[in-house]
Amino acid sequence: MFASSLDVESAFYAAFERGDLDAMMRVWAYSFDIVCVHPSGPRLEGVDAVRRSWQHILSDPVPRSFDLRARLVVGSDDVRVHTLEEHICVPGSQLYAPPLLATNVYQRLDDGWRMIVHHASLMPAPGSAPPTANGALH
Amino acid sequence: MFASSLDVESAFYAAFERGDLDAMMRVWAYSFDIVCVHPSGPRLEGVDAVRRSWQHILSDPVPRSFDLRARLVVGSDDVRVHTLEEHICVPGSQLYAPPLLATNVYQRLDDGWRMIVHHASLMPAPGSAPPTANGALH
Repeated sequence: MFASSLDVESAFYAAFERGDLDAMMRVWAYSFDIVCVHPSGPRLEGVDAVRRSWQHILSDPVPRSFDLRARLVVGSDDVRVHTLEEHICVPGSQLYAPPLLATNVYQRLDDGWRMIVHHASLMPAPGSAPPTANGALH
Repeated sequence: MFASSLDVESAFYAAFERGDLDAMMRVWAYSFDIVCVHPSGPRLEGVDAVRRSWQHILSDPVPRSFDLRARLVVGSDDVRVHTLEEHICVPGSQLYAPPLLATNVYQRLDDGWRMIVHHASLMPAPGSAPPTANGALH
């Protein structure tokens, strides 16, 4: 049982670092109503699709270490929305991953707090132009 | 007063289509605790930063039309999380914008339902490789 949204989030990134699929799936609500968007990936819905995606990602044996920054928490007593920066490195290597912005949503359910949404996307490069400067419509 | 998260969402995209900054800001909670991530943009926090970003985006007079698809709603009685596809076109033109995935979070407050988080990011191109196939760490 996770006692808070922060506890779930810690377990999420710990499972990710360890490449532990079972621990990763214990973080999520067991429901059709979960949503996961990996960076530049499609929206995945429900436990089966979300589990398959993590199985694929965690099957890569590269050791990851997460430096989480700038966490902001909003929401209510039973649904908490965390936004934060994920800075990922591979210990002992120069392997570089671009930093990500994640929106993680947690809900208090009968069996404690669980993750219900993870949406991660690339952060802008430092000094890059504002979103509409290149003619984007949004 | 918005009576539901769906009402807020309709008003959000209507304001976006009309380029109506005041209507756009009436959709949002009036709070430091709002978060907005435009596609490939940084995380913006609080009414002032969020308003400035919309002022910038909506100052572009191009008429946008949103085709919203595949809305999924999760959450509780007082916080609703919508994920959906945004397909944007410019009526009468061939101007193309890549489709976006949005996570929109709404909360029931004393003055009705309001938006508290908008996180939009590019959808993958059809047939593109899965997230980790290019060596990404997430």
